[in-house]
Amino acid sequence: MRYELYYWTGIQGRGEYVRLALEDAGADYRDVAREGDDVMMPFLQGAHPGNLPFAPPFLKAGRLVIAQTAAILFYLGPRLKLVPASVSAQLYAHQLQLTLADFVVEIHDTHHPIASSEYYEDQREEAKRRTTDFRKHRLPKFLDYFEHVLDRGGGRHALRKHSYVDLSLFQMMSGLDYAFPRAMRRLDRRMPLLRDLHKRVAERPNIAAYLASERRLAFNEQGIFRHYAELDDGFRTAR
Amino acid sequence: MRYELYYWTGIQGRGEYVRLALEDAGADYRDVAREGDDVMMPFLQGAHPGNLPFAPPFLKAGRLVIAQTAAILFYLGPRLKLVPASVSAQLYAHQLQLTLADFVVEIHDTHHPIASSEYYEDQREEAKRRTTDFRKHRLPKFLDYFEHVLDRGGGRHALRKHSYVDLSLFQMMSGLDYAFPRAMRRLDRRMPLLRDLHKRVAERPNIAAYLASERRLAFNEQGIFRHYAELDDGFRTAR
Repeated sequence: MRYELYYWTGIQGRGEYVRLALEDAGADYRDVAREGDDVMMPFLQGAHPGNLPFAPPFLKAGRLVIAQTAAILFYLGPRLKLVPASVSAQLYAHQLQLTLADFVVEIHDTHHPIASSEYYEDQREEAKRRTTDFRKHRLPKFLDYFEHVLDRGGGRHALRKHSYVDLSLFQMMSGLDYAFPRAMRRLDRRMPLLRDLHKRVAERPNIAAYLASERRLAFNEQGIFRHYAELDDGFRTAR
Repeated sequence: MRYELYYWTGIQGRGEYVRLALEDAGADYRDVAREGDDVMMPFLQGAHPGNLPFAPPFLKAGRLVIAQTAAILFYLGPRLKLVPASVSAQLYAHQLQLTLADFVVEIHDTHHPIASSEYYEDQREEAKRRTTDFRKHRLPKFLDYFEHVLDRGGGRHALRKHSYVDLSLFQMMSGLDYAFPRAMRRLDRRMPLLRDLHKRVAERPNIAAYLASERRLAFNEQGIFRHYAELDDGFRTAR
């Protein structure tokens, strides 16, 4: 099966969770995002028969069209051998991915608390306020949760063995390190298992090759994870 | 199978999408939310073995623990005969439910754009700004999408036949009518199929009985859908 991944060009965004799974599994796929946004738009406008996506990413697998990042991974997981076979494990992987998706919305909204359609610069004050709460409450809450999940999974994996959830946790840590380096360093000691997982995933041969390739786009200020020093700085009191 | 639904007491919230499915199907379930939040907390703290929820709602089905509203409905759908049998239809139902879940986050954040942990009154100005964008861009965008989905489904159902997605769309319309009555009236003409679906679902015998019962909590200002007149009023220019 040759999969086709549709997403916006120029950013990692939500498409990256799917890419990491396809790359890790060495799957055959066409990354349609690389060919420009025009190829994608007819699907969103309903020009194609079948399931109607609200937004990218979406995956074409034969005649199936699957939208929503977590649903795509739920579908791909067993097919790419990136999730255990039991129903319970697959539902748990999916729940973890959905929780991570909720976290991603909150990460995005740190820089866009008012409107996605407006510039960051036009909601900077609100962003500072939202990010202060995010760093204080939400960031540690989500990281503590995933650390707890790893602990329950035996310490090395979310699900006792390698899965797409580990790949997504890798991406989460990478993005947070990029966006909030100071806040993340401050939390380092409470998440040793996440730190270790992050390192181990980066060393998986297919992932290491992908990260070193031109296919891996750099984080940038159009994506979900953005680095604005003023949003990472609010707790600097003793300098 | 007797299902157990765990959720916060006192609000419809995300638990309501699960309740509507259980009620419509006449399923045997225990609504643990009715017994106080204390019963739920040990699960969130990891005191029980198995899958660890990040937040309610979660469902206990025998030994399975399933968190995340859309994942619960994905699991219940075939078991309650609230989704067609094909993989494609079940993935589409799930995608629609996940898109609705994204919408629910945006609806919640109209009154809490800065921090869930702070009072509405302490983020009222930001809420007005966010809701202005929501009413102008996001509300019509999501409603147009679901109207389009109904149109593609033949006009009467999201999926060509009754499913949990129809029940969730009913809940979405009910909540929006409560929170934003003026904004919703203004959009009425562009969503005849959603209006018709809303009416038909309310008339389903099990749903009508549920809505008339004490089990259906009223919308209120602790939930996701909240009515603050000042957030519904921004486009009143010609009165």
